[in-house]
Amino acid sequence: MSAPVYKKVTVVGTSRQSIEGAIQSAVHTAGKSLRHLSWFEVREIRGHIADGKVDSYQVEMAIGFSLEGQEEALNIMTAL
Amino acid sequence: MSAPVYKKVTVVGTSRQSIEGAIQSAVHTAGKSLRHLSWFEVREIRGHIADGKVDSYQVEMAIGFSLEGQEEALNIMTAL
Amino acid sequence: MSAPVYKKVTVVGTSRQSIEGAIQSAVHTAGKSLRHLSWFEVREIRGHIADGKVDSYQVEMAIGFSLEGQEEALNIMTAL
Amino acid sequence: MSAPVYKKVTVVGTSRQSIEGAIQSAVHTAGKSLRHLSWFEVREIRGHIADGKVDSYQVEMAIGFSLEGQEEALNIMTAL
Amino acid sequence: MSAPVYKKVTVVGTSRQSIEGAIQSAVHTAGKSLRHLSWFEVREIRGHIADGKVDSYQVEMAIGFSLEGQEEALNIMTAL
Amino acid sequence: MSAPVYKKVTVVGTSRQSIEGAIQSAVHTAGKSLRHLSWFEVREIRGHIADGKVDSYQVEMAIGFSLEGQEEALNIMTAL
Amino acid sequence: MSAPVYKKVTVVGTSRQSIEGAIQSAVHTAGKSLRHLSWFEVREIRGHIADGKVDSYQVEMAIGFSLEGQEEALNIMTAL
Amino acid sequence: MSAPVYKKVTVVGTSRQSIEGAIQSAVHTAGKSLRHLSWFEVREIRGHIADGKVDSYQVEMAIGFSLEGQEEALNIMTAL
Amino acid sequence: MSAPVYKKVTVVGTSRQSIEGAIQSAVHTAGKSLRHLSWFEVREIRGHIADGKVDSYQVEMAIGFSLEGQEEALNIMTAL
Amino acid sequence: MSAPVYKKVTVVGTSRQSIEGAIQSAVHTAGKSLRHLSWFEVREIRGHIADGKVDSYQVEMAIGFSLEGQEEALNIMTAL
Amino acid sequence: MSAPVYKKVTVVGTSRQSIEGAIQSAVHTAGKSLRHLSWFEVREIRGHIADGKVDSYQVEMAIGFSLEGQEEALNIMTAL
Amino acid sequence: MSAPVYKKVTVVGTSRQSIEGAIQSAVHTAGKSLRHLSWFEVREIRGHIADGKVDSYQVEMAIGFSLEGQEEALNIMTAL
Repeated sequence: MSAPVYKKVTVVGTSRQSIEGAIQSAVHTAGKSLRHLSWFEVREIRGHIADGKVDSYQVEMAIGFSLEGQEEALNIMTAL
Repeated sequence: MSAPVYKKVTVVGTSRQSIEGAIQSAVHTAGKSLRHLSWFEVREIRGHIADGKVDSYQVEMAIGFSLEGQEEALNIMTAL
Repeated sequence: MSAPVYKKVTVVGTSRQSIEGAIQSAVHTAGKSLRHLSWFEVREIRGHIADGKVDSYQVEMAIGFSLEGQEEALNIMTAL
Repeated sequence: MSAPVYKKVTVVGTSRQSIEGAIQSAVHTAGKSLRHLSWFEVREIRGHIADGKVDSYQVEMAIGFSLEGQEEALNIMTAL
Repeated sequence: MSAPVYKKVTVVGTSRQSIEGAIQSAVHTAGKSLRHLSWFEVREIRGHIADGKVDSYQVEMAIGFSLEGQEEALNIMTAL
Repeated sequence: MSAPVYKKVTVVGTSRQSIEGAIQSAVHTAGKSLRHLSWFEVREIRGHIADGKVDSYQVEMAIGFSLEGQEEALNIMTAL
Repeated sequence: MSAPVYKKVTVVGTSRQSIEGAIQSAVHTAGKSLRHLSWFEVREIRGHIADGKVDSYQVEMAIGFSLEGQEEALNIMTAL
Repeated sequence: MSAPVYKKVTVVGTSRQSIEGAIQSAVHTAGKSLRHLSWFEVREIRGHIADGKVDSYQVEMAIGFSLEGQEEALNIMTAL
Repeated sequence: MSAPVYKKVTVVGTSRQSIEGAIQSAVHTAGKSLRHLSWFEVREIRGHIADGKVDSYQVEMAIGFSLEGQEEALNIMTAL
Repeated sequence: MSAPVYKKVTVVGTSRQSIEGAIQSAVHTAGKSLRHLSWFEVREIRGHIADGKVDSYQVEMAIGFSLEGQEEALNIMTAL
Repeated sequence: MSAPVYKKVTVVGTSRQSIEGAIQSAVHTAGKSLRHLSWFEVREIRGHIADGKVDSYQVEMAIGFSLEGQEEALNIMTAL
Repeated sequence: MSAPVYKKVTVVGTSRQSIEGAIQSAVHTAGKSLRHLSWFEVREIRGHIADGKVDSYQVEMAIGFSLEGQEEALNIMTAL
């Protein structure tokens, strides 16, 4: 059964500058402990307002990655 | 009954530059007459095209704010 | 920041005759106190049944209008 | 055009006890400044967690009310 | 990049008594192994029927928590 | 073809006390004439407001039940 | 437990003339065998095209009715 | 008013072999007591897992059928 | 492979008179260059407001048509 | 501006055998006149019933393809 | 029948820099072969990740344009 | 608090043969490191096209499993 299997996790990135910054921040944090990150899907864009101004952007997104090696799959899935 | 109550209004901001610009414009306008703005949620991103180019971004969003003081609540709610 | 900002309100119009009648009724009522009405979006079409017949159509719709002048914006937004 | 017209506003009630408490709190606050409240529709149930326990329930809901008299309609709609 | 990043997991709590009980049960279980739980969002309310009566409530919800410290982030993300 | 087949009906229960009460009321009524009730799924939570207070909760839900015996299936399906 | 319980059925009405005609046709047919019809909700508007013209409108709608008397409830529910 | 009226019922078919098997099973069961079955729409595909393997497929679907003859309509509608 | 294949295009019809008029206008225009039009599905009903009145109805709809002959299929698909 | 641009078309494939057969049929037909087909997304699974049995499966899907060369883009886009 | 009719096509733009860049790229490509482009609606924001970083943004959007002249309509519709 | 708590993870299975194959592959991989797998829910069916043919099916699904023993719960939840 050599067909690849992927897993998706839901993460919320934040940034005071931009929507892209919030996305990059989330991908960067996820990449510290997960390998084979492959794609992301934006689920929701929200933000915090302070003093009548946009204080930060919050982007909820799903990040997909492949469960490539069997050993690896075991560990990451345990880490489901 | 001291638990806070919030109200959400739907606003569409526009900008010729960026999505973030459209969001900021809407928050800025809402902040002129409403206090305690607390968060926003993007509902839809659209835009106008002119001469085959993006002419402006239009971002529909909900803006939430707390109805804090009773007096205040009365007025703002009348202004529902 | 001359880019226009719009506000949307949710209204339910009713009519014993037709869906169009319910839409017109809601727009007509909203137009009595709001200026610069610009567009509507139908959200839901329901109705009341009496004596086994359609008694009335109820159309929920969002009505959008621009917050054009600053003075005006202040007042209408207070009336958020 | 005597067919009734309704307006819906979006409010978020909160309660430390229960979902029903959050709903009642929002209806109670809205009822201070709006007459003819007629129905509510729950849009979302969320909550805040503190110290690993549910700290409060937040219920977003639409509240519908009729714009009955013409005079009244004028005022409340201005207060759209 | 000090902007906070959050993770959301999907959990289904159950209770024979109430919807709130099912929510509290899920938060309580999640809190045993995850720190910094911050908010929940109800996704679906279902239940089991036995002998013609409600036997239990099942509430599917997303639980969000912050990935605060870097060390910590590493571990919890591995535990994605 | 011994694999079970289920049917779902849509019912709206009401209660002046609680959401759980409205669910139980609907299950109880359905159970008077349908056997093998197995699960429910909440579709919408609404309610009626009177005198500025929650007058009743209305919970729309799907109720699922198995069509077990062939004879039985015939009758209940005729009763689709 | 005197709180009313309602049932909803899904029907598709058709008409060669208009959307309202399709709605009325469905309500009329349902009313031949069901009592206490109370409301309808339009789910989808489609239609058939023949010879490059609209041949008929098809309106899918839910029709709600109350299960009032116990005896009656028994019968109609059997007729679920 | 000779325009046809259709009714839709919601059924869940199951099969240990395939999604198509679950669909066929539901159609087959419905066809035992309902005439004029005309179309189906898949609403959801789920399944049961046992011993780490797919144990059965569960396909929720709407089945549409016409209420053709008046007599017939009466009976089937009573069987709503 | 004689099983028919259909294509759907998205069109927005407009009318100053009625929703049906907007639908007919879109079907009529599509029928000028596409053969085998078979059905439509309404996606959204919106409209333009001018001088506080409904100025026009805008109905977004999908129109489906069969790709019958192979030659024909080639041409129409090129015209995707 | 060398970043790729894709186009999606909506097609409905049919098959008397299986869901996969309906998907393959649609992809096969689209591939006769469109190059660079890249992916598909299932939108809806429906079917026709005849004589109380599944007569055919109908799968609505979006098919995506890249608009690679400029010349080519021109032609295919004209064929939008 | 002088009321305008519009057509919408679905395009996916990509950019390595920003969401706005992906939108502009898609509009630019569409404008090479389609006239009267009028508006766009963002449907989904996704992206590709490589080496643990955002590699490109992919924005799926609908682009609307008017079918103005009859001659023109014929051609562009053939190019549906 | 003996009421069971479940967790759901999102996985994408792939197969060159069939939709069922993609589902089984995902369940099989998840079962290597997670115990008590209980049910799955299909979220989306997509696929890759190569040389004008379906190259593989991709099925995104949620897989639910119970967090039965406390010890176990601790570990698996850490592995959230």
